Amino acid sequence: MNPFTYRDNLLYAEEVSCSKLAGTYGTPCYVYSKACIQDNYQAFADALQDWPARICYAVKANSNLAILNLLAQLGAGFDVVSGGELERVIRAGGDAGKVVFSGVAKRSDEIRRALLAGIYCFNIESQEELDRIESIAKEMGIPASVSLRVNPDVDPSTHPYISTGLKDNKFGVEIDQAWELYQRIAGSSHLHAVGVDCHIGSQLLDLAPFRACFEKIFELVDRLHGQGIQLQHVDVGGGLGIPYAPADVAPGPREYAQVLSSFMQGRQLGLVVEPGRAIVGQAGLLLCRVEYLKHTSQKNFALVDAAMNDFLRPSLYSAWHEISPVCEEDGDEVLYDVVGPVCESSDWFGSQRSLRIRQGSLLAVHDAGAYGFVMASNYNSRMRPAEILVDGDQAWLIRKRESVEQLFADEIIPG
Amino acid sequence: MNPFTYRDNLLYAEEVSCSKLAGTYGTPCYVYSKACIQDNYQAFADALQDWPARICYAVKANSNLAILNLLAQLGAGFDVVSGGELERVIRAGGDAGKVVFSGVAKRSDEIRRALLAGIYCFNIESQEELDRIESIAKEMGIPASVSLRVNPDVDPSTHPYISTGLKDNKFGVEIDQAWELYQRIAGSSHLHAVGVDCHIGSQLLDLAPFRACFEKIFELVDRLHGQGIQLQHVDVGGGLGIPYAPADVAPGPREYAQVLSSFMQGRQLGLVVEPGRAIVGQAGLLLCRVEYLKHTSQKNFALVDAAMNDFLRPSLYSAWHEISPVCEEDGDEVLYDVVGPVCESSDWFGSQRSLRIRQGSLLAVHDAGAYGFVMASNYNSRMRPAEILVDGDQAWLIRKRESVEQLFADEIIPG
Repeated sequence: MNPFTYRDNLLYAEEVSCSKLAGTYGTPCYVYSKACIQDNYQAFADALQDWPARICYAVKANSNLAILNLLAQLGAGFDVVSGGELERVIRAGGDAGKVVFSGVAKRSDEIRRALLAGIYCFNIESQEELDRIESIAKEMGIPASVSLRVNPDVDPSTHPYISTGLKDNKFGVEIDQAWELYQRIAGSSHLHAVGVDCHIGSQLLDLAPFRACFEKIFELVDRLHGQGIQLQHVDVGGGLGIPYAPADVAPGPREYAQVLSSFMQGRQLGLVVEPGRAIVGQAGLLLCRVEYLKHTSQKNFALVDAAMNDFLRPSLYSAWHEISPVCEEDGDEVLYDVVGPVCESSDWFGSQRSLRIRQGSLLAVHDAGAYGFVMASNYNSRMRPAEILVDGDQAWLIRKRESVEQLFADEIIPG
Repeated sequence: MNPFTYRDNLLYAEEVSCSKLAGTYGTPCYVYSKACIQDNYQAFADALQDWPARICYAVKANSNLAILNLLAQLGAGFDVVSGGELERVIRAGGDAGKVVFSGVAKRSDEIRRALLAGIYCFNIESQEELDRIESIAKEMGIPASVSLRVNPDVDPSTHPYISTGLKDNKFGVEIDQAWELYQRIAGSSHLHAVGVDCHIGSQLLDLAPFRACFEKIFELVDRLHGQGIQLQHVDVGGGLGIPYAPADVAPGPREYAQVLSSFMQGRQLGLVVEPGRAIVGQAGLLLCRVEYLKHTSQKNFALVDAAMNDFLRPSLYSAWHEISPVCEEDGDEVLYDVVGPVCESSDWFGSQRSLRIRQGSLLAVHDAGAYGFVMASNYNSRMRPAEILVDGDQAWLIRKRESVEQLFADEIIPG
């Protein structure tokens, strides 16, 4: 579903006009659709219904408490990568017993907190981490359930920054080492092997790398089974992409599940999936206002009131996002570079976009629900934007706009 | 001066051991040297002493209140790029009358606040902005002092993200247009032309682009003078680089002033300079701890407790920073990729660094005083680090480490 549609030349989020939202809450702001998140979650649940599957939403994509609360109500589990994300899940009413804890450098205090909270399992990224978790589990007298994140050495053909399953990446353990580590876990009274995990990258638009990865993982499961090591689940990670550009074709949860089915058939095995972007990416947009239109001999610029501090993806990943006016103006289309107020040339949202706009027009940067607000900073001493969740004809402020006092409330002048 | 030196194989910040700082304040944390900031400021003051010069520190480089307060005490003016930065300067005890306000998309509320505060001048980036400032100045009955930021179309040969003086950049007005705009300003009773401004980019290690820029700017000043438009000052911007890599050779304020002298000679003209990085860059480091050493068949990783959310420069600009152990361990040097806990391959600080370290070792990421904390985010729900200012044998906590509750204090679950 696309929750953002035009009616009489005005962009709506579900049943609420984006123009009204901008008037009420100001700009820049993130606007999310509750129905879209629900639909995307349900699409995974439907596609995976033949197996005992747990959808562990990847909190890093969008960690607002209201979004986590919504997903918890839908029955989701959570994939967290830090103690902060675990606290968010708990605060949002999520079930710690449905949490998998990923991440390459878990601190001791984070491990202790997770054991106390009773998470489902740790996704183990190295032997060194396994050693630390075993020793903490022993010290606390709480056995730790673990799943080894295996690095399958598969090229996901995505942006190098979000490719994570190649041999020279920092993530996971190599398959041969995994084999040894499972033997070690089997011999420990403080560790309990519940699964195996993999994650090869983010924003994959092709299913072939998933298939290549699953082949290696399920082969490992079979080998372990042959040695008497029975796992409860296979965690196939996340990474399913969404269409950002018009030419992008993204497989959906159903196509993804079809790839899985040839591996899952006939097995007594649970499944864990960790979608993030595929659930929230298309459910959000960044609303901003054109402060100035600037015309130079080389280019036309639409200078908007949002910036790279609010939304980093174009700067960091050269990401392409659709940009459309909330209300199209009359007149000819003009090619604009859509850029922000920050004093860097990297502060841009789109180049050479054909738009009918004027000073004061509202613009929507689409597909900004994932890796949007979560990457926001205060660069240039800019206050982070508000977040709004739309549910039918209702809008809820789910994060207040930052105030200028908050920028320096924690700072202290000596003396 | 280098305020970070080794004594008996232990890294010190001025007279305080970095190991002690890590023990007291935890890691990751930023550590700044007061003496180094003072020295760098004084080097500019000395180099420019022959002219009526104002050093307007570029707040965006490091905006901590304690740093701004220190610079205000030294007599600095400030270059701000947002209302948030202006509030910081005022809160830190800076003199608004020494503030220049740059930035391509100043909002009306920011302009009003700046007029009320009595800033020295606005650096104007477009005709559209000039129109807005004129109309607000008229409405408020407060004349606005302005300086036109001219885009000299000079290639600074730096990273494209921080190159700002090329014709196709969003910054400034073209020289021919500037000429027209100064005529307009001369005819307005609400605007007062006090200067001309330029800024071609950041982290310049070569003086030639500065010279090319100054030629164009001073030629414009002469042309304006010939037409009876007398300016109070020329603002030559910032951009002076610092050496990050061992092979980098950076000109200092004295060499920079020598380039200026051929242009300033014999003129009745004030000078404004806007250094940021050159004052604070080398005065700071990021202290972090090795959580794990991970050895794979391809690489060795030092997984540290700081991440791209704490320090974005390596990810965003592929920036090279020296990394050294606070205390070197015995044994052989090993090549490590120094990476953080964030779940992206872009989360790295250095690759293939030769280090003698072990699990638990402290590492210093050097030259992190500029564009460090100011770009920090909460990505992966990580709390932003503490900041510490060292003054001789004293250390001051100048920003508290964020708490987990602060991550979601502004978020609201509907219903």
